[in-house]
Amino acid sequence: MIKKLLSTGVIASSMLFGAAIADEGMWQPHQLSEIKDKLKAAGLKLDPEKMADLNQFPMNAIVSLGGCSASFLSEQGLVITNHHCAYGSIQYNSTEENNLLVNGFVAKSMDKEPQASPNARVYVTESLTNVTSDIKGSIPKGAEGVEYFNAIEKREKELVADCEASQDYRCNVYSFHGGAEFFLIKQLAIRDVRLVYAPPSSIGKFGGDTDNWMWPRHTGDWSFYRAYVNKDGKPADYSKDNVPFKPKAFLKVNANGVENGDYVMVLGYPGRTNRYRTDVEVESTFKNVYPTSKRLREEFIDVIKANSEDGSEARIKYESTIAGLANYAKNYGSMIESFNKGDMLERRKQLTADLTKWINSDKKRKAKYGDAVNELAALIVESNKTQDGDIVMGYLGRSAMMRVAKGLYRLAHEKQKPNVERRRGFQERDMKRFGQYMAVTNKSFDETVEKALFMHFSKEYAQLPKAQRNATFDKFFGFENGLNEAKLTAQVNAMYAKTKLDEADVRLAWMDKSVEEFKTSDDPFIQFAVSQYDHDMKEEEKGKALGGKLQQARPAYMEAMIAFKKSRNEAVYADANSSLRITYGNVKGYSPQDGLVATPFTTLEGMLAKYQPGDDEFDLFENIRTAISTKQYGPYKKESLGSVPVNYLSTLDITGGNSGSATLNANGEFVGLVFDGVYESIIGDWDYDPTYNRSIHTSVPFMLWVMENVDGADNIIDEMTIVK
Amino acid sequence: MIKKLLSTGVIASSMLFGAAIADEGMWQPHQLSEIKDKLKAAGLKLDPEKMADLNQFPMNAIVSLGGCSASFLSEQGLVITNHHCAYGSIQYNSTEENNLLVNGFVAKSMDKEPQASPNARVYVTESLTNVTSDIKGSIPKGAEGVEYFNAIEKREKELVADCEASQDYRCNVYSFHGGAEFFLIKQLAIRDVRLVYAPPSSIGKFGGDTDNWMWPRHTGDWSFYRAYVNKDGKPADYSKDNVPFKPKAFLKVNANGVENGDYVMVLGYPGRTNRYRTDVEVESTFKNVYPTSKRLREEFIDVIKANSEDGSEARIKYESTIAGLANYAKNYGSMIESFNKGDMLERRKQLTADLTKWINSDKKRKAKYGDAVNELAALIVESNKTQDGDIVMGYLGRSAMMRVAKGLYRLAHEKQKPNVERRRGFQERDMKRFGQYMAVTNKSFDETVEKALFMHFSKEYAQLPKAQRNATFDKFFGFENGLNEAKLTAQVNAMYAKTKLDEADVRLAWMDKSVEEFKTSDDPFIQFAVSQYDHDMKEEEKGKALGGKLQQARPAYMEAMIAFKKSRNEAVYADANSSLRITYGNVKGYSPQDGLVATPFTTLEGMLAKYQPGDDEFDLFENIRTAISTKQYGPYKKESLGSVPVNYLSTLDITGGNSGSATLNANGEFVGLVFDGVYESIIGDWDYDPTYNRSIHTSVPFMLWVMENVDGADNIIDEMTIVK
Repeated sequence: MIKKLLSTGVIASSMLFGAAIADEGMWQPHQLSEIKDKLKAAGLKLDPEKMADLNQFPMNAIVSLGGCSASFLSEQGLVITNHHCAYGSIQYNSTEENNLLVNGFVAKSMDKEPQASPNARVYVTESLTNVTSDIKGSIPKGAEGVEYFNAIEKREKELVADCEASQDYRCNVYSFHGGAEFFLIKQLAIRDVRLVYAPPSSIGKFGGDTDNWMWPRHTGDWSFYRAYVNKDGKPADYSKDNVPFKPKAFLKVNANGVENGDYVMVLGYPGRTNRYRTDVEVESTFKNVYPTSKRLREEFIDVIKANSEDGSEARIKYESTIAGLANYAKNYGSMIESFNKGDMLERRKQLTADLTKWINSDKKRKAKYGDAVNELAALIVESNKTQDGDIVMGYLGRSAMMRVAKGLYRLAHEKQKPNVERRRGFQERDMKRFGQYMAVTNKSFDETVEKALFMHFSKEYAQLPKAQRNATFDKFFGFENGLNEAKLTAQVNAMYAKTKLDEADVRLAWMDKSVEEFKTSDDPFIQFAVSQYDHDMKEEEKGKALGGKLQQARPAYMEAMIAFKKSRNEAVYADANSSLRITYGNVKGYSPQDGLVATPFTTLEGMLAKYQPGDDEFDLFENIRTAISTKQYGPYKKESLGSVPVNYLSTLDITGGNSGSATLNANGEFVGLVFDGVYESIIGDWDYDPTYNRSIHTSVPFMLWVMENVDGADNIIDEMTIVK
Repeated sequence: MIKKLLSTGVIASSMLFGAAIADEGMWQPHQLSEIKDKLKAAGLKLDPEKMADLNQFPMNAIVSLGGCSASFLSEQGLVITNHHCAYGSIQYNSTEENNLLVNGFVAKSMDKEPQASPNARVYVTESLTNVTSDIKGSIPKGAEGVEYFNAIEKREKELVADCEASQDYRCNVYSFHGGAEFFLIKQLAIRDVRLVYAPPSSIGKFGGDTDNWMWPRHTGDWSFYRAYVNKDGKPADYSKDNVPFKPKAFLKVNANGVENGDYVMVLGYPGRTNRYRTDVEVESTFKNVYPTSKRLREEFIDVIKANSEDGSEARIKYESTIAGLANYAKNYGSMIESFNKGDMLERRKQLTADLTKWINSDKKRKAKYGDAVNELAALIVESNKTQDGDIVMGYLGRSAMMRVAKGLYRLAHEKQKPNVERRRGFQERDMKRFGQYMAVTNKSFDETVEKALFMHFSKEYAQLPKAQRNATFDKFFGFENGLNEAKLTAQVNAMYAKTKLDEADVRLAWMDKSVEEFKTSDDPFIQFAVSQYDHDMKEEEKGKALGGKLQQARPAYMEAMIAFKKSRNEAVYADANSSLRITYGNVKGYSPQDGLVATPFTTLEGMLAKYQPGDDEFDLFENIRTAISTKQYGPYKKESLGSVPVNYLSTLDITGGNSGSATLNANGEFVGLVFDGVYESIIGDWDYDPTYNRSIHTSVPFMLWVMENVDGADNIIDEMTIVK
């Protein structure tokens, strides 16, 4: 069954069938030639065949920043991405005297461009190689479970190591359709990246957390980098002698932006979607995982707030944690809301029923796809068995001291193996980042808060049935017979009082110690880590065994699903996996609810109407307020709006990781940056609904208007190729 | 100057000038003939002259319930109003076994119609008499201040007493333009009112507090009463022998409802607006009164919640207080928001400047209107002097025990005077209600909560400068030298421990006691009331003196304003004052903010989409859910929507008191009930903005659809005259 999938034909040819829902789909570059008729019909004027070529325009103008997407806007290596993608770099270059997040930054010439940050990277994808046969061929005959899992992991690591022989490249193997296909992606890793231009946060982050995922929106979410290489054109560490990277192509900027209904497409690196998860997975996620996680995240925030005063040093350490938790609580809240209103679960159940019926209605099909559906369902039930405990442990175990101790002890074990056999995160390539984490742990750690969090989630944990709990964890903390709050408090207090792991030097020193040294340590958190190790390893093996089975079962299921969809003339694209994808659609408003219509554009006047002096989410400097109130629109006014368009909506199918992606028009011209989706589209990671799925883009006329009239970034406008 | 206004000509003729902003205006019936051209131009097909006649259709089909508006829908005295206007009656008829608020109620025949409630009334306005000359003529020459105030009050009371000679009538004198005109309004007071039909709250109050003032809206906010009279057709106490009242006219019901853009008008009793307040009043209200009151109301809620557990007996006593406070906090919040976003203050300032300039630019005008603007402004500054203290005292003095004690002691004093000279609220006509309040005080009073509220607001009060505080109050509670919290707590505890005023019998007994008995009482709250009386009376006299001055200055100012507006061809309508008014406009959506459009209709599907099982604000019974999901639209489907319209928006100029008002089309047919305004229109009480001012109506097709398909109220449909 799996052998059949080794040739990519089965999957790829399924794209040929035309009844796919418009706008849905995150297509791999090699699929473009197969959907060329649909692209043309939708309005694309470029040649889809050429667009599939990574070495041709426009694909070779598209880059990744690792986590965010970006693109080249000049032959001098000028890169545009979202303000929120460059946020860390802007922060890195801020000083007490000049907070660039507040004030914004424009380098008026190249020699004034500072290093974005030591970790900033621009990744240019150079090749995508289908390595499915290679990887699958490396699996011993009859292997299953752990053996199957390990064989795949080993071959992946070897392929990556070979590919990364030169430090100019970063390579990764991406699995598609749950392991039916594997691609090795090779990216030129440019490591001298500089900050060119960032608007003030009052433009780049206008609306803050309040407007996050919301429409109407008025955010100027862009920033500019420049990629630098050495004089030979090769990636190099930051150096004054480096020169701007010359990309093979860059995007022209269309100053007119877009009109309602226009063809648009986004080229970028979407992170993860779950469009092909089974009804069992949908049900457990939306009825258990998300509601519980939302509640626990909200409790996590409450405990932090109750144990650290507003503005205190302790609170500041947790501000980004709070923001992240709140962000996800809102995200989960939206998905739960959409799920409860919609009928996704019923549709998935129907799909399973239809698929099963289709398989069983034909002898050959029954022989071929057999129990694919049931096998996967059984494995999912198996893996959900400890779901409740896993969720609670996810919060109970967020303690920095516990994580540090476990990480260090794991490192001591992993170092005993050859590099290539080590677990991901503990290989030589990971050591720099590992050390950095150990060095800065205290920046996000407060003892009082940690203890309070541990005690809070202990109560939740203690109430779980035994099968959901971890026996060695129970033993260490005395949970065997329920919670003894006083005793546990005393134990935890004693641990924090005695440990030295709250000192950076001590943590860094442990990176070099042996397993034996850990075993004889009297540090209570090290003792904790040692006590948990064997059990954790057993659990990890169990996980790998299950993972291996899933790596066999899920592709089998997907093969059946793809064949079934093919029989219904439905196209299939793979779930997002952080690899390069193309999504296309149109500029279009929507009705978020009965009685309301979201129009596709917002304007400068709407931005000014949101202005709230003294509220850092909705503040605006006087220069932009004046420019708006005096209607200094210049050539950027859209006559149909009577103003300058700020943000716009489209039907594009995007997700996290697409942030910073260039939005292109039918000619491949740059017409904006995608930076968010509307509230009703958050569930899109599981279920694309053409009624509600809208992505939010910042418009080119707004960007140029700000650059010219507000931020004085004329030199950057001059560097770009502006078309009308 | 005032004499000039005695003839109504000055004001009335100002309506003749045509440049009034469309849709704005709450017109008195006698003004209709003067704006007839505009009404015709807007689409009215009825004769405006006839519409002005209270004794002709449609005006004689319009009634008041006291606080709410209503109208007759059959020749059998069938009355329709809002569900929220009939709420108390529905509650009154609920039992433990059958909660009509939850289940709804339909009387399938007249003999099954229970008394709505003993206090329910239907008021049919029979005459509006201009009594300006009468009242102004009764003022002694040269009178001012208290004398001026008392003279008007005395004559008003006499007119009311004469008019109310028969208990069949309720009469009131209404002042217009701040005292420039007075009308005596005589209403037939029908006092046998019965409950005919109320939908369940899941329809009649669908959306609850969350949707209050919000669009999109899906509320079936209607209920039906019937007016009963004795066999001679006269108002009578409830009796089985009574018969349905035969109104002189009733409204026909148009089953098609309305289309986008249709002419609509609302006839009802709007309560209070402040459209002609000066810039000084606007500024102090929006920069001080509303923000402070909003904060104090929110604190009031917090204190109640902190001192009474959710679901406890104490909390239940304050639930309606909390709901009311939260409602007004939301209301004030919206107004502050709109004020901060808009330019009302600048426009009012400009208006004052323009008015002053206009007055001063002509000798005759200067002589005539002289210092009208400055005099009023000076009086307003004077009356705002103790504003900060008054606001805090408004919350500090909300203690039931204090109010009861003060009310009872005041009654002892007032009873010494002839009935007609007593203060309003202490006359013979008020005694029934007074006694009822004394009997039920404990239903909304909890000692722990009251004490906590008093201590909380004491802190706010103690921080006020001495000039904002009340010296005798300070003396009684020891505030002279700031707050001594421990001492005050002890004093308050002792007062509540000793008082007997928390017993209904004791309170009722005090209604018959003499001033002397109060003075010698050892009840601490009675002692409190006695200690405050002289000072309170002095303050009341001061208030009357200021009131008298304002009753002279405001009409003078309004006369100048009206003449000025006349010079600019602007029409003038009087601020709302609970008297019968007409507003006209169109069915129309709006844009609440840049990037969003509110469409003018909502549909059944939108109602179902809001359904939240177990959430009592968004619950829906199975019968309506099934009727919606199976699309049982019947003849009520609007083709342009593909569904049944639930609520709709119009530009009508309404305010509190308009609740329950019939919405009529160009032919005077019933096309809905107005029941709310959108969030952005709340500031409309101060400033009508055609961009944002939208009223919300429940649609006739929805009402008939529910009656026929959900509530089984066919007998009521049959009783009405339905047209298409």
